[in-house]
Order: sequence, then C-alpha cells, then structure tokens
Amino acid sequence: MAGHTPTLPAPFSNAVSPLLNDLYQVTMAYAYFKGGRHEEHAVFDLFFRKHPFKGEFTIFAGLEECLRLVDHFGFTADDIEYIRETLPGVSEPFLEWLAGLSTAGVTVKAIAEGSVVFPRLPLLRISGPLGVCQLLETTLLNLVNYASLMATNAARFVQAAGPDARLLEFGLRRAQGPDGGMSASKYSYMGGFHGTSNVAAGKAFGIPIRGTHAHSFVCSFVSLDDVPDPTVTSADGSRSVNLATEAAGCLTELGFDAETTNAGEFAAFVAYAVAFPDTFLALVDTYSTLDSGVPNFMAVALALARLGYQPRGIRLDSGDLAALSIAARNMFAAAASQLASDPAAALAFRNLNIVASDSINEAFLHTIAESGHSIDTFGIGTNLVTCQAQPALGCVFKLVQIGDAPRIKLSQNIAKVTVPGAKLAYRLHGHDEFPILDVMVLESEEPPRAGEPFLCRHPLNEGERVRVKPRSVEPLLTTLYSDSSVVGELPSLESVRSHCLVQQGVFKPQTQVKHPSPYRVYLSDALYTLLHDLWLRETAVPELS
Amino acid sequence: MAGHTPTLPAPFSNAVSPLLNDLYQVTMAYAYFKGGRHEEHAVFDLFFRKHPFKGEFTIFAGLEECLRLVDHFGFTADDIEYIRETLPGVSEPFLEWLAGLSTAGVTVKAIAEGSVVFPRLPLLRISGPLGVCQLLETTLLNLVNYASLMATNAARFVQAAGPDARLLEFGLRRAQGPDGGMSASKYSYMGGFHGTSNVAAGKAFGIPIRGTHAHSFVCSFVSLDDVPDPTVTSADGSRSVNLATEAAGCLTELGFDAETTNAGEFAAFVAYAVAFPDTFLALVDTYSTLDSGVPNFMAVALALARLGYQPRGIRLDSGDLAALSIAARNMFAAAASQLASDPAAALAFRNLNIVASDSINEAFLHTIAESGHSIDTFGIGTNLVTCQAQPALGCVFKLVQIGDAPRIKLSQNIAKVTVPGAKLAYRLHGHDEFPILDVMVLESEEPPRAGEPFLCRHPLNEGERVRVKPRSVEPLLTTLYSDSSVVGELPSLESVRSHCLVQQGVFKPQTQVKHPSPYRVYLSDALYTLLHDLWLRETAVPELS
Repeated sequence: MAGHTPTLPAPFSNAVSPLLNDLYQVTMAYAYFKGGRHEEHAVFDLFFRKHPFKGEFTIFAGLEECLRLVDHFGFTADDIEYIRETLPGVSEPFLEWLAGLSTAGVTVKAIAEGSVVFPRLPLLRISGPLGVCQLLETTLLNLVNYASLMATNAARFVQAAGPDARLLEFGLRRAQGPDGGMSASKYSYMGGFHGTSNVAAGKAFGIPIRGTHAHSFVCSFVSLDDVPDPTVTSADGSRSVNLATEAAGCLTELGFDAETTNAGEFAAFVAYAVAFPDTFLALVDTYSTLDSGVPNFMAVALALARLGYQPRGIRLDSGDLAALSIAARNMFAAAASQLASDPAAALAFRNLNIVASDSINEAFLHTIAESGHSIDTFGIGTNLVTCQAQPALGCVFKLVQIGDAPRIKLSQNIAKVTVPGAKLAYRLHGHDEFPILDVMVLESEEPPRAGEPFLCRHPLNEGERVRVKPRSVEPLLTTLYSDSSVVGELPSLESVRSHCLVQQGVFKPQTQVKHPSPYRVYLSDALYTLLHDLWLRETAVPELS
Repeated sequence: MAGHTPTLPAPFSNAVSPLLNDLYQVTMAYAYFKGGRHEEHAVFDLFFRKHPFKGEFTIFAGLEECLRLVDHFGFTADDIEYIRETLPGVSEPFLEWLAGLSTAGVTVKAIAEGSVVFPRLPLLRISGPLGVCQLLETTLLNLVNYASLMATNAARFVQAAGPDARLLEFGLRRAQGPDGGMSASKYSYMGGFHGTSNVAAGKAFGIPIRGTHAHSFVCSFVSLDDVPDPTVTSADGSRSVNLATEAAGCLTELGFDAETTNAGEFAAFVAYAVAFPDTFLALVDTYSTLDSGVPNFMAVALALARLGYQPRGIRLDSGDLAALSIAARNMFAAAASQLASDPAAALAFRNLNIVASDSINEAFLHTIAESGHSIDTFGIGTNLVTCQAQPALGCVFKLVQIGDAPRIKLSQNIAKVTVPGAKLAYRLHGHDEFPILDVMVLESEEPPRAGEPFLCRHPLNEGERVRVKPRSVEPLLTTLYSDSSVVGELPSLESVRSHCLVQQGVFKPQTQVKHPSPYRVYLSDALYTLLHDLWLRETAVPELS
C-alpha cells in the first residue's frame, strides 16, 4: 500500500492480491463510496457455525497468512485498470480512492493460531473503515477456511491413529493444485502430522520430509543387469561387498526361493540399498507382497545389517494393510529367531518400521485400531488433503457493528442469526485450569474476572443460563495488527504446532474422536439482551386476517 | 534450466517448482543416478482408471500448466542446498547433475486440453531420460488431477442445469487456498460455466466476472439516513430525481406496505441502485424474501425503470429456492399486468433475471429441473469447487517402457494393471463422424487407417473383440513439446472452452448426466498380446502342495 513498509513477508501464494476477491466486494465498496459511507467505522467477525466432520472441535489456522494479506494489502495500477475496464459504471474518484487504499486504519484481533475453537466465536475481528474491511472478506475466508479444515482433519487422523503412530502427509498429487498441496502440507503438520512427502513444503516451512521409492522404480528393473555396480561399503568403512551377491545368499539363507520372488524387484531393492544403505525402506507390493516383496526386502535388509546398517523397513501400498502388516511382522520375527546366533542381524529385524498407505481415511484408522495391525507409520494422501468427509468449512464474515450501531444478520434459519456488536471473547477456566466455557462479552462491558461470578447465557435458549465463578479468565482475542504494523512477533510454525497439540490435550473431551462432548459458547447477559432486542426490532410483524 | 530460454510464460502459481514434488522422486532419481541409469530413455503415461462422479466421461484439463512446468523446469542453487541438507546420503556429483538438469531431452505428447477422455488413455505421454521424467511425476499429477476433476464437475453442473441456464462460479471462499480458488475459476469456465465472482481470475484468464452485493451490505443500512444523497440521473441524462422518494412511492403503488418491509433493506437497495442504476441486482433474502426483499426490490426497480433503466433482477440465497423463484416471478408478472398502462415499466418486470445460490449441488439441479422453478442463473460455490461428490481424480503416472523394453505394473487388483509399451491412441469415427471407440496402438505398429478394418480388443476380456472400419481416424496424442520448446501455439482458454463444449456435444451419450452410456477404449491386437505376455512373465507361479 502507498507509503507503507510491510512488517511481514508477503503472502505465501502469488495468487493473493486484493483482486482475489468476489466481485461483489468491489461493487459494494463502490456503493459505500458513492454514498459517502466508505470511511464509517465498521466491525466484522469471522466465525463458523458448525464444527466440520460431525465433530465437537475445530482448529483455527491460516492466521499468519491473513496478517500478511492485511500488511501487504494494496491495489496495483494494473488492478485499477482492470477494474476500470470491467466495471464501467464506477467513477474515477472511486478508482483513485482504491489506488491509494491502505489498511492503515484496520485493526485485527484474533484468537491464537492453532487454538481449539467453537461455533460463533470470532476467530478474527476486523475493524476499520467500512470500505476497506469489506474488501478483505473473501480473501480472509479463503485463507482461513481450508487451513482450518485441514488442520482439524489432520488432528482427527492423529487422534484416530493413536498416540504411538506416526502420520505422514502424502497428498500433493491429489490436492487442489500447487498451492492446495502446499497448504495441505503446512496445515496437516500444524494439526499434528509428523512429516510430509512434499519437498517444497519442507523447504518453505521446515517440515520434516519423508519418502522412499515408487512402483515405477521397481518396474524399471528387469534383472541384476540393470545394476551394473552393486558395491556397498560397510557402515564402518572397513570393507566393500557386492550387495547383490550378498543379498542373493541371504535370500536362500532365510529360506526363500529366488524362483518365486521377482528378479526385477530384487534388482530394484539392491539398487535402492546401494544408493541409501543407511535408510533402506522398500515398497514391497509391486508384484506380490508376501511372496516376493517382503522376501526380497528381507534378503537385502539382512545383507545391509551384516554391513552394520539398520534397514528402515517396508511400505505397503495395496491389499489388506492390517493383515499384511501382521504377516510381514511375523516374517521379521521368524527371521530374528532364526538369526539368534547373529544378535546384530536379529536386532535389525526387530527394529523394522512398517509404513502403510493406500486411500487411508479416518474410518479405516478406527477399524484397524480395533481389529489389530502392526503398522508404525501411516502415509495419508487423498482423504486427508481433500477432506473427503467434509470438503469445506463454512466460515463467514459478518458485519456486527457500524459506527456505534450494532448490526445483526437475521435468517429464517435461527442457527444462522449472527451475534451483533463489537465484542470480545473469554475462556473461563475452573479447577486445574480446565476450560468451563467460552463467553462473548460486549467490548463496552466489564469483562469476567477470576473469582467473581459471571452470568452466561445460551444465545438462543432463553432458559439456559449459568453463573460461572472462574479460577482464571483467558482473553481469547488479542490485537495482532494495528496502526499499519503487526503487534509483537508471530510464532513459528513449530510453536503453533506445539500450541495446537497442547490445546488438543486440554480439550480432550472434545477432540477425542469417539463420543466427543460438546463445549459451550455463551453470551454475557447484556449481549444476550442486545441480540434479542435487535432481533425483534429488525423483524416485521406480518398482519394475518 | 541452464542456458534455456523458455518459450512459454512461467507456471501460474509460484508454488510450482521442481521441489513441488514427493521426496521419493528425488530419492529414486538418486538411485537411478547412482546406478548409472538416469539417462536411460523412458516412457511414462499419465492416465486415470475410473471416471469421477460415477459418470461416463472426464474432461482433460491442466495441460497448459504442465507444459509451462516442463518449459521452466530447473533447480535453483537454493533448491540444491536444501536437498544437500535434507538428504545427507546423496553424492555431490548427483547434486551437480540436478543443478544442471534440463528438460531438453524430454518430449511431451498429449491429448488436446478440454477433450472428453476415457479410462486408460494416456492423457500425457512423457518420454526422455529416466531421471528427469521421474522428477516430473508429482507436479504433473498435481496440475492435471484437480484441473480435470473441476472441469468435469463443471460440465456435469452445466448439463444438469439445462441448456437455458447460466452458471456462475462463486467458490473462492471455500476453495483450497488462493490457488485452489484460481484453478476452480479457470477450469469451471473451461468446462462450460459462464462466469465467476473471482476478480483475480477475471483479470488473469479473461473470464467474465459477476457479482452484486452481500447480506452485510444490507445489514449496514438502518434507514434512509444512511443514504445522504439518493440522487439518480435518468438514462437519457434529461433529469435527476430523488430515488428514495420515487421508490417509496412505487412501493405504495405496487400495493406493498412500508410497515412490513425492512427500512434498512430499502435504504440499502436505494444506495446500491444509486451506484449501479443500469445493472441493479439485489440480494433479497436478508430479512424476509417475499415480505420484504422482493417488495423493496420491485419498488426500486420500478423507479429505475421509469428513469429508463432495465433493472437486472434479484438473487435468492436461502430458503426454498425453486418455490421462492416461482413466487417472485409471479409477483413480477402481477406488477407487469398492473403496469399495463406503462408499457416500458411492464416490460422491465418481464425481463428480470432470478439468480439463485446457497449450497447448490448437482442433485439439487436435477431435483428442481423436475419439480419446476423460475431461476435463470445459478451461482455455485462450495459443491462445485470442492467437488463434494468426489473430491479427487485418481490420475497416475506409470512407467511403460525403458530403453526398448516395455514395462508393466501389476496389481492383485486386475483393474490396476497398466498397459505397457510406448503407444499412441486413435479415435475411430464412423458415420456422421461420430466416435465409435478409442484404440491404443504400439508406436511401432501400423496405425489404423480410414476405410480399413482394424481389430480392437478389450484390454482384459479375452473374448471381447471388434473389427472396426472407421470413416476417419483421429490421432489423439500429438507432440506438444520437444527439443526444449513448445511445438506450435497453445490455444487460448476461450478456444479450449469452445473445444470442450463441442466435445460435450459429440459425446452426448456419455456426457448426459442421466443414464450415460459407457464408451470403449480398446487395444490393438499386438498391444493386447504384449500386455498379456508381460503379465505372465512377471507373475510367479506359487507352488502349492
């Protein structure tokens, strides 16, 4: 924006600009401008009405990108020219105003990124000149909706897989284009995943990257002729061996038959082990998992173990993953027993990691947790990144106050009525600092205080009231942007992720995937009264006769 | 890439780079390099196995972005440094090779973007050095999968809405981040949508943009006090009037009661009409659609009509859209009758457009097509851009030949067996140029010729054969990139869209949304034989006793 030096890096995606917007934001801005209302002070809340995935929790994500948008907000001369051509109805003074537009007057309050949040809570509260705030709506929603959905989905997968599992995001090829893939990697990590296959996300966000090889690698080998130099040096550097010869001997030693294992696959594993002797992990389902893939892997793994390397393990990518993992584990255990006289080799077979991938979804994780499996790591792609179970979160951005007047958006669907007014939100904690409920309070009111009773009311159910005497009161909305700059330092992705994992623990009754408990978000008495007064005032009484 | 001047613009998203890749592509490239195989000539096919949405057609999209990727492919020094840090196992010569990597040896053949395509057909065929081709896999899949899914979904919505409807993409706020939103706009237009609300997509791709105002605009007005200057000049410039006064008179004239219509909404419509007198379209469901929104709209619309303007119409965004559209149309018709003595005003009420939005999906379009409605234009967001009915297309990228050796990927799931070999594909046309079937043929074979019988075989069903004597033969795969440059000119989005609409007509039996007919993709006899020979050769015979 004119004369402003941004304090944050630019938005991650080059698609983010003030034009990444629904046209109606521009036409509305013009109507406000034309009516002289564009500088009126307005307050907008960004919130959602219903948890995704039929759950009882949502993780708020996307905040840093929102702040980058606000910090870098400004139309280019090109943008203005495009609007001039496309909207011939708008006036030159409006285009001049747009060209000079800045977010200098905009204040952003928000809940910390990575927090567990609930319906109707303002995740972001944007206040400032009506014309500017209106132009932020669509882009903010775009940046929050998918990020929060993704982080929430990831957290659900992590919960479903159980505390010992490691989860890797493998969805890049099925995401909504390049930036969809980047967002999926970032926000699944925020929600609790342990790594990604997406190298660009590793580089951009510092996320651990993981990967081995694909079926095409195995298919590209026909025989050992395709491995001209199968030499591997031992881990201690003392000797070099022909890994192909060693592994062929191991195959026989382990009781497998080179006639029934696939020779191209064997060659592929040798070649891969030559390249990565200290991190050897093989995809074993190209031909036949238990008859060829696992035996070939075990042969190469034993040869590597005898060179002082710890092979990593196998990846299963088709078939009955749970049954195959158990069968493979049994084969590893049998080898370890057979190799009792070679303790290092036996140990290597006890330390193997089984990775499973192949259209895994949350329901599958539940099912195999009950039926039993021997999978250590899950690679999850399509159903994670597309959020198969519910592909969109419904955050909305609603005007709640203009000047001094609180505003309401009514609907024939009562659940869609908005909570009016410039408000703040507090989390009231009880014994052991566990949260009791969240309460929204008008900014002009006295906030709740520790040790003092505070009347909280259900927004729609007149009779449902509760007087809470909190041990401590946590303000949820803090000012993160004002006077053209970010307030304080933004946390790193790593620390947002830690916060998110802590929050998932605090809200255990809500985040557990089976039979979660709902959590309450109430209103102060004054806010309840305001909501219902406005509701009556804005609704006509039809005359029936 | 080193020393290469790209012939195409850079990929649209800044997230596209050789690192936008699964890590295993890099580790495989290293294993190929280490084994001296990275320069071996390889052929990969990009294809899908099953139509999305339980349908019988798919639209191929994303090609231009794939070609941009290939044309701009190259690692930066930064990228190399990141790989050096993250993969300590790889050698310096490999990193040097990566740093100098180019797609100079890569040839891309593809089916024309916007074509109707079928399972197993190679949409893209990538050939060149094994190491480079492997590194293209993930990014190509990312660029094709969502694009094709989106274009196909859009085409289905267009078919379901019927030939008279206009469809607008409104999904930016629910897409997978910024670039997901841009892709949704581009590829829904390609599939047959008529416009988008996304201004950035309008600017970037030349798509028509549409939009009016939101509920927040309506909520921001309490009364006419918020419209200090409601002056509008007539279309012919001859006079200026106070639109608020005129419209208030019209409200009474049309038989509505200002006591039951919402005053803030009335003020909002006046303000919007002052800004856009010649394109006035009002969102009418903020308070009560039929009791307040439509009457307020009609009052302002009549005032505008008397100033010589044609108001555009209304948008419905909640409630029973079909019933409300019929009720609103009846109110317009009643007004037109009442205004018989003022033919221009009466005509204005006969020309109004009813736009509907609110979680519209394909099933809804079918339902209301049967039950009846009066909607002219559908604004479709979430369910379009997230492809709710099936959120991912499963394109894969499979090695089919290396050197002179055709390769196959087997699977215990027979439907997943790949068709091996460097091949081409032809569409055989019969009478009236209608397509009979598509056939894949080894590149080394004689292709099918017009007027000559050609034996076509089902890839898996041994007995299913057909001898086709085509009227004409259309080669499906043409070379689009070779020797470091694009071959010929890429078509504009507008011409890809036209091609796509023509294709939807040609494949009417497949693209009709109800009871579509399947279309056949067969193999030449030689390709059938190769497939089954390789299958037997790569499968071990387990010994049972």
